[in-house]
Amino acid sequence: MEKTAAIIGGGVIGGGWAARFLLNGWNVQVFDPDPAVARKIGEVLANARHALPSLSDRVMPREGKLTYHATIAEAVTGASYIQESVPERLDIKHTTFAAIHAAALPDAVIGSSTSGFKPSELAKGADNATQILVCHPFNPVYLLPLIEVVPSPATTKTTTAKAMEILTSVGLKPVHIRAEIDAHVADRFLEAVWREALWLIKDDIATTEEIDDIIRYGFGLRWAQMGLFETYRVAGGEAGMAHFIEQFGPALAWPWTKLMDVPELDDALIKKIADQSDAQSGMYTIRELERARDNNLVMILRGLKTQNWGAGAVLNNIDSAAKSADDAPDLTGLIRTSHRTVPLDWIDYNGHMTESRYLHAFADATDRFMEIIGCDAEYIATGGSYFTAETHIRHLDEVHAGAEITVDTQCLMGAGKKMHIFHRLQHADGRLLATGEHMLLHVSLETRKSSPPAAQIEAKLIEIAQNHADMPMPEGAGRAIGQGR
Amino acid sequence: MEKTAAIIGGGVIGGGWAARFLLNGWNVQVFDPDPAVARKIGEVLANARHALPSLSDRVMPREGKLTYHATIAEAVTGASYIQESVPERLDIKHTTFAAIHAAALPDAVIGSSTSGFKPSELAKGADNATQILVCHPFNPVYLLPLIEVVPSPATTKTTTAKAMEILTSVGLKPVHIRAEIDAHVADRFLEAVWREALWLIKDDIATTEEIDDIIRYGFGLRWAQMGLFETYRVAGGEAGMAHFIEQFGPALAWPWTKLMDVPELDDALIKKIADQSDAQSGMYTIRELERARDNNLVMILRGLKTQNWGAGAVLNNIDSAAKSADDAPDLTGLIRTSHRTVPLDWIDYNGHMTESRYLHAFADATDRFMEIIGCDAEYIATGGSYFTAETHIRHLDEVHAGAEITVDTQCLMGAGKKMHIFHRLQHADGRLLATGEHMLLHVSLETRKSSPPAAQIEAKLIEIAQNHADMPMPEGAGRAIGQGR
Repeated sequence: MEKTAAIIGGGVIGGGWAARFLLNGWNVQVFDPDPAVARKIGEVLANARHALPSLSDRVMPREGKLTYHATIAEAVTGASYIQESVPERLDIKHTTFAAIHAAALPDAVIGSSTSGFKPSELAKGADNATQILVCHPFNPVYLLPLIEVVPSPATTKTTTAKAMEILTSVGLKPVHIRAEIDAHVADRFLEAVWREALWLIKDDIATTEEIDDIIRYGFGLRWAQMGLFETYRVAGGEAGMAHFIEQFGPALAWPWTKLMDVPELDDALIKKIADQSDAQSGMYTIRELERARDNNLVMILRGLKTQNWGAGAVLNNIDSAAKSADDAPDLTGLIRTSHRTVPLDWIDYNGHMTESRYLHAFADATDRFMEIIGCDAEYIATGGSYFTAETHIRHLDEVHAGAEITVDTQCLMGAGKKMHIFHRLQHADGRLLATGEHMLLHVSLETRKSSPPAAQIEAKLIEIAQNHADMPMPEGAGRAIGQGR
Repeated sequence: MEKTAAIIGGGVIGGGWAARFLLNGWNVQVFDPDPAVARKIGEVLANARHALPSLSDRVMPREGKLTYHATIAEAVTGASYIQESVPERLDIKHTTFAAIHAAALPDAVIGSSTSGFKPSELAKGADNATQILVCHPFNPVYLLPLIEVVPSPATTKTTTAKAMEILTSVGLKPVHIRAEIDAHVADRFLEAVWREALWLIKDDIATTEEIDDIIRYGFGLRWAQMGLFETYRVAGGEAGMAHFIEQFGPALAWPWTKLMDVPELDDALIKKIADQSDAQSGMYTIRELERARDNNLVMILRGLKTQNWGAGAVLNNIDSAAKSADDAPDLTGLIRTSHRTVPLDWIDYNGHMTESRYLHAFADATDRFMEIIGCDAEYIATGGSYFTAETHIRHLDEVHAGAEITVDTQCLMGAGKKMHIFHRLQHADGRLLATGEHMLLHVSLETRKSSPPAAQIEAKLIEIAQNHADMPMPEGAGRAIGQGR
């Protein structure tokens, strides 16, 4: 089914929204009066195409169609999701919502990227107040999952539920904020930290670089995975959360912070910060910093994904949803056991997929093949599995990050404890990148020794082996290192 | 050379310090009057042994010797580094420093873990004020690199320099804070965020879980790698930092935050927070949360290590320092090409080292072998390298996280463009875990086709191949999948 999102306002934030929807298979209709809008969104899209597909261990949907429109009315036509990211002025927001109303579907969700206004301020006097809510994203929108979803009293429950559902489906993590306040929640923390940071710089206690180091070598690493309260819960230990919080009592009353005062953001302080920032980061262009930030985010997110924790669990949910939509594979021909893009963490200093990730791709394909014959998580929990005993890989061609790759699997032999399979790793352009030949043995996870598989698994394996028996022996199979055919 | 640290106060923080030094090869002498100190430090050490070795891609130094002492005088005897982590009461701190003075080396560094006191308050009236400074760590001390180093006016420059050097040598990232203020820098931010969080909970805007989600799905992921200012620099884009900051001007004056007020931390608010925290995290024990936190930190830190960024760059510096201390390898026998522990991110759902990481271990060993014959980063930058064409692995035994492993390499053939090598992967207990047989071809990085190596590289390779020519052909070499000898 075709899905269409309208992006009203195409700056860095609007561009991030456009990329998030487009790369998740939605058609995206953009309105922005800026004549440079296509270039600006193109830059954000280039960043998103570099990084976002790396978060998935499956191939992403085909990109939707991106179109630019001369009017808001044209851009919102047919869109089930509309995101407003126009400048932070209430009069502009109101005019925009009126223009959206004139042409939008009556059941479209209308999200606002506002970081400061309450949804009831946005919706004041609007004919489509029931459709409007705050959906506040974080830069870069194509990588960071958080969306603060804040309905106004006029927003219908249906609108909020639909917003949560759509945002989740494009890999985001909407957090429903039940009470509207100025600046929602996240920016209140950012504001508090920002004020304190300004004082530290003004008073020459620390530079921008020292402050950043204090955050990124310290509590930033904790907050990326657990936030504030769960971190303190762990720190508090067995004595419990209530006991731990009581200890904070006295400190709260101490004059540690200057939060009561607002530093004057005069030219001298602005120059001081800008100069320190130049000394800290001026050796990188903004483009280089964006690339570094995005690569780092991919590494952090993929690391959390291996632990199925926090933002990593969000990614696994998306992969699982895509997987459960797969049809049952046809077992008469070669079996498609993997279809994915090459993620950024599979790349080495040579710029291409590193040696061991070829085996990673084959091992994932083997896991999928095992699943197909019934050796899935449920079966493994009963104490049986297959372990690889031997592997032969021919590295035939290079492949780079972002490339779409597939693995097709042929069963050379399957009977008793043994399973002999042959994988072909191909680029979407048809190039054969590598072959992997593997001998696996069924093992008892209790004794760690080889053992016969369950009858239904052996039967399925034999069925596939018989289906594949008439296929020619693949080139490269049965070969030792350095040996010709 | 034997190095000795004294740990005065053995709670969670003292235990973290003990683990950090011990696992980096220092002898550690502990004083704590608590009869349960050995159990408590033992628990922290178990966590540290699980996680810390995963941060290195080399084997860590042999653990030092851990001893417990009945007096401060005994504990500090012979220690070049002394860390005080006693309760946060100034009178206790002063008594402790006096007792340290009575027996410490006159050039020992005396660091304090205090989170609130200024170093001049700590050193007031102390005979050893020149040796005392704040070295404020972050929990878990064995994983988080940040140390806020704050000297008092009485601290000598030599003491500060020595503290920075020692802390760096055990994998920490000391940040020298040039002016002393209450609570140093990091805790000022934590205090500001904490106050704001208390208001949000008290006013029913968000729960502990929603606040944690807002942090860990949003700005926490940015702060883990870039902190505050570099993040804003990127967000500001080409317009520059000064322009970006000016935009904050108006927001600072808006009544977004309640920072001026301190919420009363009464029983009702404490209960509310504790109840919300139970609902959020109560399904995990503290031990499970610690394990999750540490595994997540390892994944984040190792992810940043691949990018050589921030806390990951700190880890690479430590590995490089250890590497440059290596002797030139003996090329007449088998060549030791790897010596490391199995890190946590090499483990799969079966709990053992996953299939593809065997090839990862072999590929790293191949890189080291290439370096030994002169195909190092400098040579590769001139446009030549070796690519693996073919690999044969026999998986012979399982291995788990934290195990010490080695790879020893035999050159089966080396001449012209070809290099045929054979790796043996062994557990420190002597078990052979796997063998890897690899055919590599020298390539031109410009044409991506095979090409002859530089003369000095081929000569070195031939020299090693001749040295190894008399060795027996290794068992398993030259074999195809499923083929016996």
